Amino acid sequence: MIIIFKTSATQDQVAHVVEKVQELKLNPMVARGTLKTVINVLGDEEVIREAPLQTFPGVEKVIPVMKKYKLVSREGHDQKTVVQIGENARLGDGKLSVIAGPCSVESRDQLFGIAGKVVKSGAIAVRGGAFKPRTSPYSFQGLGEEGLKYLQEMSQEFSVPCVTEVMDNRDVDLVVKYADVLQVGARNMQNFSLLKQLGQCGKPVILKRGMSATIEDLLQAAEYIAASGNLNIVLCERGIRTFETAIRNSFDVSSVPVLKSLTHLPIIIDPSHAAGVWEYVAPLAFAGVAAGADGVIVEVHEEPEKALSDGPQALLPAKFESLMLKMNAIADIVKEG
Amino acid sequence: MIIIFKTSATQDQVAHVVEKVQELKLNPMVARGTLKTVINVLGDEEVIREAPLQTFPGVEKVIPVMKKYKLVSREGHDQKTVVQIGENARLGDGKLSVIAGPCSVESRDQLFGIAGKVVKSGAIAVRGGAFKPRTSPYSFQGLGEEGLKYLQEMSQEFSVPCVTEVMDNRDVDLVVKYADVLQVGARNMQNFSLLKQLGQCGKPVILKRGMSATIEDLLQAAEYIAASGNLNIVLCERGIRTFETAIRNSFDVSSVPVLKSLTHLPIIIDPSHAAGVWEYVAPLAFAGVAAGADGVIVEVHEEPEKALSDGPQALLPAKFESLMLKMNAIADIVKEG
Amino acid sequence: MIIIFKTSATQDQVAHVVEKVQELKLNPMVARGTLKTVINVLGDEEVIREAPLQTFPGVEKVIPVMKKYKLVSREGHDQKTVVQIGENARLGDGKLSVIAGPCSVESRDQLFGIAGKVVKSGAIAVRGGAFKPRTSPYSFQGLGEEGLKYLQEMSQEFSVPCVTEVMDNRDVDLVVKYADVLQVGARNMQNFSLLKQLGQCGKPVILKRGMSATIEDLLQAAEYIAASGNLNIVLCERGIRTFETAIRNSFDVSSVPVLKSLTHLPIIIDPSHAAGVWEYVAPLAFAGVAAGADGVIVEVHEEPEKALSDGPQALLPAKFESLMLKMNAIADIVKEG
Amino acid sequence: MIIIFKTSATQDQVAHVVEKVQELKLNPMVARGTLKTVINVLGDEEVIREAPLQTFPGVEKVIPVMKKYKLVSREGHDQKTVVQIGENARLGDGKLSVIAGPCSVESRDQLFGIAGKVVKSGAIAVRGGAFKPRTSPYSFQGLGEEGLKYLQEMSQEFSVPCVTEVMDNRDVDLVVKYADVLQVGARNMQNFSLLKQLGQCGKPVILKRGMSATIEDLLQAAEYIAASGNLNIVLCERGIRTFETAIRNSFDVSSVPVLKSLTHLPIIIDPSHAAGVWEYVAPLAFAGVAAGADGVIVEVHEEPEKALSDGPQALLPAKFESLMLKMNAIADIVKEG
Repeated sequence: MIIIFKTSATQDQVAHVVEKVQELKLNPMVARGTLKTVINVLGDEEVIREAPLQTFPGVEKVIPVMKKYKLVSREGHDQKTVVQIGENARLGDGKLSVIAGPCSVESRDQLFGIAGKVVKSGAIAVRGGAFKPRTSPYSFQGLGEEGLKYLQEMSQEFSVPCVTEVMDNRDVDLVVKYADVLQVGARNMQNFSLLKQLGQCGKPVILKRGMSATIEDLLQAAEYIAASGNLNIVLCERGIRTFETAIRNSFDVSSVPVLKSLTHLPIIIDPSHAAGVWEYVAPLAFAGVAAGADGVIVEVHEEPEKALSDGPQALLPAKFESLMLKMNAIADIVKEG
Repeated sequence: MIIIFKTSATQDQVAHVVEKVQELKLNPMVARGTLKTVINVLGDEEVIREAPLQTFPGVEKVIPVMKKYKLVSREGHDQKTVVQIGENARLGDGKLSVIAGPCSVESRDQLFGIAGKVVKSGAIAVRGGAFKPRTSPYSFQGLGEEGLKYLQEMSQEFSVPCVTEVMDNRDVDLVVKYADVLQVGARNMQNFSLLKQLGQCGKPVILKRGMSATIEDLLQAAEYIAASGNLNIVLCERGIRTFETAIRNSFDVSSVPVLKSLTHLPIIIDPSHAAGVWEYVAPLAFAGVAAGADGVIVEVHEEPEKALSDGPQALLPAKFESLMLKMNAIADIVKEG
Repeated sequence: MIIIFKTSATQDQVAHVVEKVQELKLNPMVARGTLKTVINVLGDEEVIREAPLQTFPGVEKVIPVMKKYKLVSREGHDQKTVVQIGENARLGDGKLSVIAGPCSVESRDQLFGIAGKVVKSGAIAVRGGAFKPRTSPYSFQGLGEEGLKYLQEMSQEFSVPCVTEVMDNRDVDLVVKYADVLQVGARNMQNFSLLKQLGQCGKPVILKRGMSATIEDLLQAAEYIAASGNLNIVLCERGIRTFETAIRNSFDVSSVPVLKSLTHLPIIIDPSHAAGVWEYVAPLAFAGVAAGADGVIVEVHEEPEKALSDGPQALLPAKFESLMLKMNAIADIVKEG
Repeated sequence: MIIIFKTSATQDQVAHVVEKVQELKLNPMVARGTLKTVINVLGDEEVIREAPLQTFPGVEKVIPVMKKYKLVSREGHDQKTVVQIGENARLGDGKLSVIAGPCSVESRDQLFGIAGKVVKSGAIAVRGGAFKPRTSPYSFQGLGEEGLKYLQEMSQEFSVPCVTEVMDNRDVDLVVKYADVLQVGARNMQNFSLLKQLGQCGKPVILKRGMSATIEDLLQAAEYIAASGNLNIVLCERGIRTFETAIRNSFDVSSVPVLKSLTHLPIIIDPSHAAGVWEYVAPLAFAGVAAGADGVIVEVHEEPEKALSDGPQALLPAKFESLMLKMNAIADIVKEG
């Protein structure tokens, strides 16, 4: 921890902070510049993080030196995490892993139709929403448990794991019963009580970045899951909110290399939600893979004009097939070494 | 609903959309300009909102004409809502209503000490967190039910309603038992299953604006609560996330007059969370009141250096007292008429 | 300057940086924590700022301790600057100073008509654009020198200084000839060659904050003017670009108290450009004054429906008059002491 | 143009707008819904754009139907523009065009050393700054005309065109004398008088997107150059300002496909300025190429630790060479067809 004082800070104010630091059994190293004083605090930063030093008179700024997310940080964890999903699929093992499927599970037929095609094109898992977070209360809210059942049947039929979102603390046990991977949506990224529950759910978790979450926020949210006992976490970039309105969300492709430098967890991208319309899904998917993503999650529908949610951003199965070929080719080029 | 076609759209593509609109029993009014065609859809917009018209070939843009939040909109509801909290307090009745108290309930003594002072200075309700949403899993997470009990005792002791946050779907019943007003934090503004529960909880709700929520998102979140049966909703501006880092959040003071023009619900401001440090709390509070806010929620602590959460932004009781005087004076000036 | 090393940094990498610091005749103070090393550099920070230390192997972050804008900073300049404009008006002298007038000078009559009214209501200076920065090349671009002449005549007629914008390096001498105060628009805030010229122009400058400029950027832009010899600078908050689209720009009212704590220069607000529509001008003006602004610049027009630019945001003279009364009343309340 | 009225709008208010539209010799088509009235205005939208209809009583919103940038829009210009730079190089011809060189020209030797290497690796043009826009007035500001002379000599020596920035209206003629392509920096994207001058300069222009410029703003800025007579314009994405601080700017990779759908001009990317540090330059470059960019502009330096500007983001020549190979391979994959 580094504490910078105002130019106007008095010796007494500095001494007051030094005392507080020593009280916490840490070692303050004081550097007096011509105009400003700075204290370096040596010792376990965790101890001092919660002390409201910012509130001490004379203090201008308090700057942490250590990362606030020690379990998911690469500091001290050099090896990348490989997340096993279901029996045969993995995320983060060096190959490009693609998860595909409809936005919402609308019926057994719809799900099975799409699943058959995306698996044939190389998807390692199938996604589909049973509980849908919709901005309007008047929109389709998902099939609920019925949807979960179709997902499980589909999973058995095609021998492929299924991914679905959980939104409500009271539904966690139910979703765990049917799904192979639980997804936390962007709007729930800082639903801390949900994160704690998922830390104990025994299944891998895909954690989507919130629309206004910094990369540090995302890693602290992941730390919640990790601190509760679950390190099978996959981070997902899906676009952030900016001033630009020409596209639904600004796909923050930079987060891919930045996250790779900060955490050992696998990183996937969701080009469908960032794009909002299918025309932009392929270029964003290519961009994310080129930037080094470990995987991609993408929405596919056989009849987008009739989709009950997010039809405009769904790819037709044939488009998805050609997308797969190009994404794999790009992944081969950018692979290190 | 207005549908704008691309310059390249064909007659068949326009006809395909017209057909879809008629299928929904709505009335399409086609305007063919020299370069572009536009369709005005007359009839109940709700019916067409869910149709993925954006995905139809030739369509450039789909623009809604009606607000997506009909229960909380001023369109058709001219009279402002007054929210009764507890027996004697009201929000939105034309007077400035101030809620104050500590960030977290830390002990019975701490809460009672602060409550006594803020009530004396004119606060109409006391706030205090029992369940705390913290960005780090290693931070103090609140006293839980013990905190709720202190709140209820305090409420009885000082004859003043208490306000506290609920974060977990499983805690709603518990919190309802003890608290007079339930607060939804910024990070849960789009936790739709929580919003639905609060629509049926029977107590007033303070809904804080999410850090990246547009004003329209906030009103749609309020619509979730309203659509589930509860119209006792108070909206709260507490700062948004922007590129500016000189202050914790950018206090979006414009939202006050904008919200007043769009909704009949009362609007309060939270200068403490926007500021992040106590020095800026007063100017932001004055600004929000000057912009027309119906109330203010503000954090007060007797020993900020020892606070277990958000110490830097807490006001001392004496500061709060002088704040009250100036806020009331400003409210008198800007009152219409 | 503080240099934080990565956990993986080697002793040699630290030594390499120490050497560089010593080469610059500064004093490196090394603090070795258990996991990370930190260097405090003592001595004139200016010397080291330009060294690309970030590029040295092993370095994680470089954090400046001193402000980058030493002439306009409050660090070492306790007394607030009062800017004299024309013979009788001042900005920053403790009274609320209001500048008003049309967006564009459209004709001699239009300008004189408005000027007479706003001066009578208490404006200390009149604004009017002769060169207009328009986002579209097909919009009205201003009357040019003709407009400047009308401004000067108006200024003499009403014994009030005039404020106008300069956009082109080649026009600075021309504008200086006619105007009392030169304004730099938001889009030119980082037009560094223009700023340097204005540092030598001999007239006060109003510097508007760029739409995506941080407060630090604004102060560094002001430093350009100051470093070229002109300290008669007035800073102006006029809204920033955020994700919110319900209003033209997000009026960053927090910048008022933040700037007051960082600089000795006067700070004014422009509620008209932030609002974009006249209905929101008054609440934003009240908010800015309540937050402590030294002055306000606001657009007034007698026939907004016929205005050649920014008609929707113009106040009618009668509205301006009542605005003045309320703004002055608020300023009296928030005045310190 | 579409005009939406408030639910509270009266018949007289609608009639008043209809009258205004007819006065402009346009054709208003009125659609009365149950709750709201909408007018479609048929005819040349340019005529009505400047009328301040937003200010008319009863009007809620005014929505343009046509693009505001007709010369650079794809609406009506199907064929992509190919920009010829110097005698042998082109941008937008279907091949990936890479421009490389140092941030600043620091000396003849420095420039020639880097130029030789990047040309050998396949760069089609060399960049180098002679006038540098620096956020601090105390930073290195460029060699000025001396730098321009070195650029011209280098250009002749290596038979490769040179690209350099112009910042000051008074320098345009000077820069035109020496450079093959003139660049407008992000901070000057809306320096409209500079844009107008460049419309008449007779050389191709690279227009960088401003940090807070929307895609529409960028296209309107390009329209300024086009409307003044110059259609040899190349657009450049270089990152936007968002709330994320883990990287210097958020590289808005989505702008590449969005711009390709909206304009016929070539689009290049600048990964160096977005990244701010060299480690992230390659992933962002790959991402931009994968998203379909026509070219890349990238900073290269032989001794980044000694660079006078932007050293941290410069690539070593050997890194640049391997970057070229991978970028070309990715471009081959994503090429349509």
